[in-house]
Amino acid sequence: MDFKVAARDNRSSARAGILTTAHGAIETPIFMPVGTAGSVKAVHQRELESDIKAQIILSNTYHLYLRPGIEILQKAGGLHKFIGWKKPILTDSGGYQVYSLAENRKILQEGVAFKSHIDGSPHTFTPEVVIDIQRVIGADIIMAFDECTPYPCEYGYARTSLELTHAWLTRCVARMDSTSAPYGYEQSLFPIVQGSIYSDLREKSAEFIAAQGQPGNAIGGLSVGEPHEEMYAMTELVCGILPADKPRYLMGVGTPENILECIALGVDMFDCVMPTRNARNGMLFTTQGIINIRNEKWKDDLSPLDEALGGYASTFYSKAYLRHLVINKEILGAQIATLQNLTFYLWLVGEARRKVTEGTFAEWKNKMVKVVAQRL
Amino acid sequence: MDFKVAARDNRSSARAGILTTAHGAIETPIFMPVGTAGSVKAVHQRELESDIKAQIILSNTYHLYLRPGIEILQKAGGLHKFIGWKKPILTDSGGYQVYSLAENRKILQEGVAFKSHIDGSPHTFTPEVVIDIQRVIGADIIMAFDECTPYPCEYGYARTSLELTHAWLTRCVARMDSTSAPYGYEQSLFPIVQGSIYSDLREKSAEFIAAQGQPGNAIGGLSVGEPHEEMYAMTELVCGILPADKPRYLMGVGTPENILECIALGVDMFDCVMPTRNARNGMLFTTQGIINIRNEKWKDDLSPLDEALGGYASTFYSKAYLRHLVINKEILGAQIATLQNLTFYLWLVGEARRKVTEGTFAEWKNKMVKVVAQRL
Repeated sequence: MDFKVAARDNRSSARAGILTTAHGAIETPIFMPVGTAGSVKAVHQRELESDIKAQIILSNTYHLYLRPGIEILQKAGGLHKFIGWKKPILTDSGGYQVYSLAENRKILQEGVAFKSHIDGSPHTFTPEVVIDIQRVIGADIIMAFDECTPYPCEYGYARTSLELTHAWLTRCVARMDSTSAPYGYEQSLFPIVQGSIYSDLREKSAEFIAAQGQPGNAIGGLSVGEPHEEMYAMTELVCGILPADKPRYLMGVGTPENILECIALGVDMFDCVMPTRNARNGMLFTTQGIINIRNEKWKDDLSPLDEALGGYASTFYSKAYLRHLVINKEILGAQIATLQNLTFYLWLVGEARRKVTEGTFAEWKNKMVKVVAQRL
Repeated sequence: MDFKVAARDNRSSARAGILTTAHGAIETPIFMPVGTAGSVKAVHQRELESDIKAQIILSNTYHLYLRPGIEILQKAGGLHKFIGWKKPILTDSGGYQVYSLAENRKILQEGVAFKSHIDGSPHTFTPEVVIDIQRVIGADIIMAFDECTPYPCEYGYARTSLELTHAWLTRCVARMDSTSAPYGYEQSLFPIVQGSIYSDLREKSAEFIAAQGQPGNAIGGLSVGEPHEEMYAMTELVCGILPADKPRYLMGVGTPENILECIALGVDMFDCVMPTRNARNGMLFTTQGIINIRNEKWKDDLSPLDEALGGYASTFYSKAYLRHLVINKEILGAQIATLQNLTFYLWLVGEARRKVTEGTFAEWKNKMVKVVAQRL
């Protein structure tokens, strides 16, 4: 894995880079559509590639481990082949899902014991197990097994949790180093900075993570309910410590506004369920702002969803038709809204990249954060 | 509207025709995907055209009248423009839905009073109202308002109901003749033969319908629970009476086997929710037979869904992946299965047409009915 910074904005910490993986190059900043169980919901693989122009997708270790299970993934030769996606894949370690979905979870030094949210069956995730699973999934980017602290989180808990996350990271690194990639292509580990909203813990964690010398680094435990100012402050602090010559990935963030602000702080990679999940509830992200398509005002608006964005869903279908589909719970409503939102998210990070390259990012960002956040 | 029979099978009553409408020509025999509320469920309009190769779709007067409502359809310039579909559309009259979905329905000589299944609001459908709505929808083919008798149905009820259906037809024809097409292009009325499973009623009805001299004719009230032999017997009887120079449409039929058998009896047009509805439950129709993809046996079958069929969904996705999606209730599962089933249905009628043209339909049909009905 190789990362080159191709351009820097001189009025912010934004940069444009190229991250090269065994499954191709990714132009950063980038947004990674979430395909939790091996499918970006309501989107065909060819749409992901040709309409949305996704360059990398994210999938989830916890979900894939439970279903379809690693035996089938191994037989298929990895997730890329199982789902038919030739570009890079990043897998979340499952840490977050074990805390948010699984039942009867018990966090020990060794790892986490939990029961499946599907059938109640007992399982244990340790740093070693989680690396092994991600090896078999065949992820290009493997995330370290961590504890994602909730918000609010007491200082004492955050500090103890951070020690556990760091201890687990050491074991993840050791496991990565002592195992090889099952399908022959390179797989890279990204460690994760934690520390809740405490500056000293974040600083300590960022230094520990930076010292690992891994090909990329992530910031976790944000966008879990804290005020945006806290999120931005922690991101800025951590980006200042993480190495500038490695990609920085801010996990689970966020709104179009959040993404633009965090690009300005030096983040290169993002993922979030918002564009896909909110699409299924009728919330559209567009170049003009946010639309709740269920609103009566769109009832007879026969104009295209987002003419300025371009592309199939945005120009072919009208607001009135999409509203009709969403109100009627038609599957096509989820399909169209998801295409719109993901196409917009990928367009947004692509535009940010172009502006960095052109040297006009800061002005554009300051104008754009207002546009993308307004309710239409 | 123009119908030309291009070829006839000499060992059955099958024929290959071309039905020309204002929105283009349809090669018969044809299957019409069902887009009840203006969307063929889980399918983008471009997929309907390019992957499935649908030549005409069916939509529903009852559903469209309730939502989005005729005002919006009128403002859009008709359903074609509202949904973005340039090829022909046939609308069911809503008769069947008034009986099967609406509440508190009351059948009177004048029409049917009912309450909406959505919000309980009161409405009345008369033959005149139903023609007017279909005019505004802009359907190329408008179906007459009829009573679809259930199965089983007592002779006395079937006879009285048939009289009502015929009286309503006379009013539908009068309304068609006294109104004009709102968007300038031609709209044609298809009357519907009823009569349950009683030969004398079917005969009487077919003669009455044939005498109307409309551009096409339909057979209703079948595939409502009667044995297949009854359905075939009634279809054969009616096809023998309906004019040979007009298309014959068998409503709501059916399985691939039913369709092949009824093509052999002289039917030209079909519609059925089976390929779309069953897709969403994981039932696949393929060139090799029927697959219940939820079955354990497909768990690690990494072969394509239906290599012989060709096309995107059938060759790109594996059985194991589709099973995983369906088990996980992923929307993409419904999308893939629907593409598979509709592509297969359209392929099947296309093949039937080719065999009629080549003069080998009967042998092919006798072999094929066994293949398509077998469980894999």
